[in-house]
Amino acid sequence: MVRVNENYLKLPGNYLFSEIGRRVAKFKAENPDANIIRLGIGDVTRPLPEAVIKSMHEAVDEMARIETFKGYGPEQGYSFLIQKIIEYDYRPLGIELDEDEIFISDGSKCDTGNIQEIFGIDNIVAVTDPVYPVYVDTNVMAGRTGALDSSGRFEKIVYLPCNAENNFIPQLPETRVDMIYLCYPNNPTGMTLSREELKKWVDYAIENKSVILYDGAYEAYITEKDIPHSIYEIEGARKVAIEFRSFSKKAGFTGTRCAYTVVPKEVAAYTGKGEPVSLNKLWNRRQSTKFNGVAYIIQRGAAAVYTEEGQRQVKSIIDYYMTNARIIREGLLSIGLQVFGGVNAPYIWLKTPNGMDSWQFFDKLLKEANIVGTPGVGFGPSGEGYFRLTAFGSRESTEEAVERFKTRLKLD
Amino acid sequence: MVRVNENYLKLPGNYLFSEIGRRVAKFKAENPDANIIRLGIGDVTRPLPEAVIKSMHEAVDEMARIETFKGYGPEQGYSFLIQKIIEYDYRPLGIELDEDEIFISDGSKCDTGNIQEIFGIDNIVAVTDPVYPVYVDTNVMAGRTGALDSSGRFEKIVYLPCNAENNFIPQLPETRVDMIYLCYPNNPTGMTLSREELKKWVDYAIENKSVILYDGAYEAYITEKDIPHSIYEIEGARKVAIEFRSFSKKAGFTGTRCAYTVVPKEVAAYTGKGEPVSLNKLWNRRQSTKFNGVAYIIQRGAAAVYTEEGQRQVKSIIDYYMTNARIIREGLLSIGLQVFGGVNAPYIWLKTPNGMDSWQFFDKLLKEANIVGTPGVGFGPSGEGYFRLTAFGSRESTEEAVERFKTRLKLD
Repeated sequence: MVRVNENYLKLPGNYLFSEIGRRVAKFKAENPDANIIRLGIGDVTRPLPEAVIKSMHEAVDEMARIETFKGYGPEQGYSFLIQKIIEYDYRPLGIELDEDEIFISDGSKCDTGNIQEIFGIDNIVAVTDPVYPVYVDTNVMAGRTGALDSSGRFEKIVYLPCNAENNFIPQLPETRVDMIYLCYPNNPTGMTLSREELKKWVDYAIENKSVILYDGAYEAYITEKDIPHSIYEIEGARKVAIEFRSFSKKAGFTGTRCAYTVVPKEVAAYTGKGEPVSLNKLWNRRQSTKFNGVAYIIQRGAAAVYTEEGQRQVKSIIDYYMTNARIIREGLLSIGLQVFGGVNAPYIWLKTPNGMDSWQFFDKLLKEANIVGTPGVGFGPSGEGYFRLTAFGSRESTEEAVERFKTRLKLD
Repeated sequence: MVRVNENYLKLPGNYLFSEIGRRVAKFKAENPDANIIRLGIGDVTRPLPEAVIKSMHEAVDEMARIETFKGYGPEQGYSFLIQKIIEYDYRPLGIELDEDEIFISDGSKCDTGNIQEIFGIDNIVAVTDPVYPVYVDTNVMAGRTGALDSSGRFEKIVYLPCNAENNFIPQLPETRVDMIYLCYPNNPTGMTLSREELKKWVDYAIENKSVILYDGAYEAYITEKDIPHSIYEIEGARKVAIEFRSFSKKAGFTGTRCAYTVVPKEVAAYTGKGEPVSLNKLWNRRQSTKFNGVAYIIQRGAAAVYTEEGQRQVKSIIDYYMTNARIIREGLLSIGLQVFGGVNAPYIWLKTPNGMDSWQFFDKLLKEANIVGTPGVGFGPSGEGYFRLTAFGSRESTEEAVERFKTRLKLD
């Protein structure tokens, strides 16, 4: 009798976005004329940069001619793209990487989900709370947790609360942790860690021989000068950190799929006897065994991000979204809401007014202003009483949403 | 101290293709003028069908306009592609599938590698021998095996020998097995299973509550009438089989990346208490948690395979390769070699002459005829004494290779 992976059965239904969908559908059925503005899912809306389009057309044409046709490429990605990443994303930060320390992939969701495979099952996982659910769910599936408790936490995982009281800065854990997921700029809170705060984590990892899994998917949205763009800006991080980056939010690739993971050769995990094993080698083995590289056409598109026009066009798209973020942030502050994020990230994280819980505020916002956002509790227990809005809408709908916050939402 | 997944350390180096590369490089250095023909790696060489190119150009243009831009798509794939798969790949075989039984992915390597995640660790895995190494390696990584023994077999895996003596038909195992990997038409042997033989496996799986993981990546190469194209042609298979299909070899997508997996809702694995759990639900959970769908542009390209021109163009490419296969097969038979496959698959599997082992023949073929193939032993212990050639070269190099077999290879 073939046995199922019973760890999967510990997961609750993927309820957050389906519950949102259910409530929106019900509201629409009852209010067919309502003009609903969706600021819920973190998906981009601007078209791909022209430089990317041009490059992909050229690559498609290459696939049509026998002389330039491309079959299997390297599982780790093409050198032409890896070299640009080193030159544009890391060298300006004073970080030198070898080509074989970068692995091109089809998304940071895949990479942050798959990375745990190369680690032992008995490791203790730490996540900030609220958190991108993929970090938690993939460790549940792998068997690194116990059951879900009544507070919405999985046994064995160490949750690091981030809330207005601690200014969204996670405190070092009191018990030892082995695999530490950090995402900065943060999804969902939109907040960042300073160099000093990030250094505490790197120092902790060095001291405890832990590994930091650093998700920098929103790095391109950093506007303030002192915020670190890469964890490798912190001394010693090369020994303990794996970094994830993506073209999804940076260049509009959510439907085009390209990302990369940096695994420096120095990062190690340990055998039962305490012998270090290079995680670069293991990730390479994982990727070359279970992955076959990103489509040539897509990698050519991603490489165009690093041309002069590409850089200019990407900057213009990010500016567009960050202007939306400023409009939402300032608009909500102007009506007395407590608002976080939106300065170095396309997410605005607001404290629900009058002690409402996240879902109560969801219903109120939908009913009174016809705006869909994401209840903070969907990202973890410490998200209760918070609410996420995204800056990825059009300017028009963003301005209209803020206007409705000001005129239609009853805050008394 | 963060622990490594020590199962990875059971794997030997990925030696097959690197060892081939090393020997070819050495030979080239010593024989700089040799004109080497490569019939080793199973990678296509013909350009993408024109219909696919046209459709991808259109899709790239859609990504350039705000009205038609696509962000995140469904993780399971777009309906426009899934509907075509049902209509063209299954309905003509008398097989009805629901849309949510098909999962679009970026490759059968990924799918056949990832599928084991939804099964328990204590299941017994059966593979044919020789075998596509991904099935074995991913189960080693997951911890379903013991160590590699001196015969080249991993402890706990049940190897089903396929050789000239049993006409490459695997016998039902003597001890119970839970997860059974079958690949037909077979890589590397190029051989197929008849309906009757396949039915034995479906009946076995039903009787033992096992699951068959059926890799049909080479289905499009079947030329003989009676060979099943899908395992679901066999009665009862919907209850016990998951099927993998790919556009890689069918439509030249090895560098473009699109495939799909069929998980009928009836297929189940069991909890410790013997309760059935739908694998369709678990695979959906796996994919929606760790995968973000295939690029819209690529799915549009794949959908064009199912247009009238697309079907004609794909057939023409397959005919081209299968003519190569016939040329190799007939040429090698004409000089008295024992040859298998090449009729319903683009692989020719030959018995090395004069009792040579696989690597001895590799060296001999490289030295005397300057042809690179793949030593059969690289696919498993029962591949020893066999050798794989592929039909994916150009017509010219294929004909030249056969000519060299006839005139330069010393077989006495």
